[in-house]
Amino acid sequence: MSDSAKSAPSATFRTTDVIRRKRGGHELSRAEIVHLVDGYTRGEIPDYQISAWLMAALLRGLTRAETAALTDAMLHSGQVLDLSEFAAPKVDKHSTGGVGDKTSLVLAPLAAAGGLVVPMISGRGLGHTGGTLDKLESIPGFRVDLSTAQFKAVLRECGCAMIGQTPEIVPADRKLYGLRDVTGTVESPSLICASIMSKKLAEGIDALVLDVKAGSGAFMKTEQDAAFLAELMVETGERMGKKMVALITSMDEPLGHCVGNALEVKECIRILLGSGPADLRELCLELGAWMLHLGGRADTVAKGKQLAAKLIDSGQALEKFRRMVELQGGDPRAIDDPTRLPNSSYLLEVVSPKTGYVSAIQCEDVGTACVILGGGREKKEDSIDPAVGIVLHKKVGDRVEAGEPLCTLHYNSDARAGHAKQMLERSYEIGEVSPAPALLIRRIIPGGSA
Amino acid sequence: MSDSAKSAPSATFRTTDVIRRKRGGHELSRAEIVHLVDGYTRGEIPDYQISAWLMAALLRGLTRAETAALTDAMLHSGQVLDLSEFAAPKVDKHSTGGVGDKTSLVLAPLAAAGGLVVPMISGRGLGHTGGTLDKLESIPGFRVDLSTAQFKAVLRECGCAMIGQTPEIVPADRKLYGLRDVTGTVESPSLICASIMSKKLAEGIDALVLDVKAGSGAFMKTEQDAAFLAELMVETGERMGKKMVALITSMDEPLGHCVGNALEVKECIRILLGSGPADLRELCLELGAWMLHLGGRADTVAKGKQLAAKLIDSGQALEKFRRMVELQGGDPRAIDDPTRLPNSSYLLEVVSPKTGYVSAIQCEDVGTACVILGGGREKKEDSIDPAVGIVLHKKVGDRVEAGEPLCTLHYNSDARAGHAKQMLERSYEIGEVSPAPALLIRRIIPGGSA
Repeated sequence: MSDSAKSAPSATFRTTDVIRRKRGGHELSRAEIVHLVDGYTRGEIPDYQISAWLMAALLRGLTRAETAALTDAMLHSGQVLDLSEFAAPKVDKHSTGGVGDKTSLVLAPLAAAGGLVVPMISGRGLGHTGGTLDKLESIPGFRVDLSTAQFKAVLRECGCAMIGQTPEIVPADRKLYGLRDVTGTVESPSLICASIMSKKLAEGIDALVLDVKAGSGAFMKTEQDAAFLAELMVETGERMGKKMVALITSMDEPLGHCVGNALEVKECIRILLGSGPADLRELCLELGAWMLHLGGRADTVAKGKQLAAKLIDSGQALEKFRRMVELQGGDPRAIDDPTRLPNSSYLLEVVSPKTGYVSAIQCEDVGTACVILGGGREKKEDSIDPAVGIVLHKKVGDRVEAGEPLCTLHYNSDARAGHAKQMLERSYEIGEVSPAPALLIRRIIPGGSA
Repeated sequence: MSDSAKSAPSATFRTTDVIRRKRGGHELSRAEIVHLVDGYTRGEIPDYQISAWLMAALLRGLTRAETAALTDAMLHSGQVLDLSEFAAPKVDKHSTGGVGDKTSLVLAPLAAAGGLVVPMISGRGLGHTGGTLDKLESIPGFRVDLSTAQFKAVLRECGCAMIGQTPEIVPADRKLYGLRDVTGTVESPSLICASIMSKKLAEGIDALVLDVKAGSGAFMKTEQDAAFLAELMVETGERMGKKMVALITSMDEPLGHCVGNALEVKECIRILLGSGPADLRELCLELGAWMLHLGGRADTVAKGKQLAAKLIDSGQALEKFRRMVELQGGDPRAIDDPTRLPNSSYLLEVVSPKTGYVSAIQCEDVGTACVILGGGREKKEDSIDPAVGIVLHKKVGDRVEAGEPLCTLHYNSDARAGHAKQMLERSYEIGEVSPAPALLIRRIIPGGSA
């Protein structure tokens, strides 16, 4: 084994020295961070050196300047989209992920309907959280693997497009994320920030609205941890000259009523039709308001919220969604008639064992139940069943009678349904008194320019 | 990239979970540590997972129990010598390494002359510190690569044998040390302890005397750090049922007068003849006393010291050395006539720029000067010149006149000599007053049974 970076022509640093400096808690220079990221991306620095550095970075922490330098180095490890041909502001939204979290499908067309350009590059689900690409692919024919040229063509036509990461965009993140996943180095705010922000900034956007989830179903369990990450991302984005805001939102129970890919698309269509669950609509309006405000379409957030509601209630957002689906190869008839979306073969109700109030729903268990039904992935290689999932009839605070349905499983396999049902039965807590209502939007962390 | 350990049939643990537990500062179980060491040795766990674990272990620390479990797991990754055929106690000595540190060549024959069995497995030099194997190989014909059977045969004949690590002994350490070297994870007392102790315990010994160096030329710069490592090794050895002692000894200037492989063998022969530098003789007698005491050949350390002096002054230790050299293929005439050992072609004196007292010698610089002359290695692959080195005429506390020689370079290449001379000129500090005499043996850390 040898330090292969030593022999690289461009290497000014010895990789082992850089690792040791971070190990000692020193702040690395921008050049040292570029050495690591570029050397790793080019295959000149081996996995085993980077994983040691990642662990040192996780345990010693990275400063704001190091986090920004890491984000920037990762961003420039590949292609940065040039969307200068679009006169309108380019705005995106990113969520750190939760259960039933489906706002992207509403927000991209909503902001596009408001005259913004939304070049959204999303991910797939892993573990108990779902992924935007999986949801979109439940629409028959919908393609998320567009080339950059096709992506721009869709943006030109309808102002929004939603695709997966291309090999050209932030290749450093693909390698680093794969390595972090198997070396116990995922849970670092700075590494998470650099991973998210490098990919979002590679979209060539002007402004970004972050939805940082906090709670039992989220990656960050406490509001404090979520706020720390949110501030880091907002500052990092601003250092790169982007307009930023982060909303800390609750993920103590699933968002909306539906969990599962096609079920969530159906719920989004209801939101775009002006109906749907109140919590989901509220969050879409709030995030949409910030997108419209940061994109210069509304002087204030309050006006942005009025405009967002108008774009939904007028049907303009739904029309954008239908158009985007069509342009990306999807069947637009599925939008007009959601029964054309995949449906499961069987339904199974989970009923309440007693009368009372829903005092809690173990959010992570609901997400895991969906994975068990086949609607999510335990490992990256797993394929998913778009039709299955869970529809929650009762949410936290709701009154329920003994024997009344709490939720319905949409399933295709008896064996899986039994296991998922047990998990859902355990996930509902029924108490005697109505719990205090929880805040959906817990905190807003604006950037200096927001 | 995937966690290959997950698919290993014997794996009870997910490697990523074990890494995360250490990352969180938790104490790993013996079984978890065995999972890592065995999985890595067998090639089932990849480098990049182990390097992340090593960094977490370095930064979070390992408990005494974890350190003992790691030592034991590494020890049992390969062959443990069975020396039960020898009735006499098996005793060894290990030094953490310094400049001019050559006591092993004196102590193995000394202890064997005292009736003990000394199955010494040693290493090569790297960086500014020399290695026992390199010194022995400056004796024409001397072979350090004996098989286990040959090793035992030499032990049977003369009670001591000195060889290099075999591929069968502690294979885990070879892999782990190679990985630590390139991932900035060398400087952990627990990892150092496990590396040293696993190799020494694989020799099948009953007792071990540790010489832990402290000072500017040592790995551990402070007495406190050296004592921490020493206590850890003593406790680890005792947990394994061995008699242990550690001496913290000074490495603020080179030990003895000679630095360089053949030069150091010549100096050892002088010690075995009853002469040689006082500091080197003193340390040999002290370490030898402890070997004889722990091996049951002397009731007290003081009596052990008297016996050690007698074994030297009677010529018995030198006779053992000559016999061992002969049995291991070396030319015994080189012992009787050290001019038969390699000699350099040229000599160059470094003289004092002023009159005064030697107040300090930058020990690491002297070691590095020897490397520059070709007598050591910067990289593992480097070959070495056995003849070159430095003879110090003045040591700390000595009076020196302007123009008087401080040391002599033994060299074979003009270009190298110039660079080494500059370094040696820098390494001597000449002050106006005689410095306070420094203690050679700073502290003794006995085991409970010592």
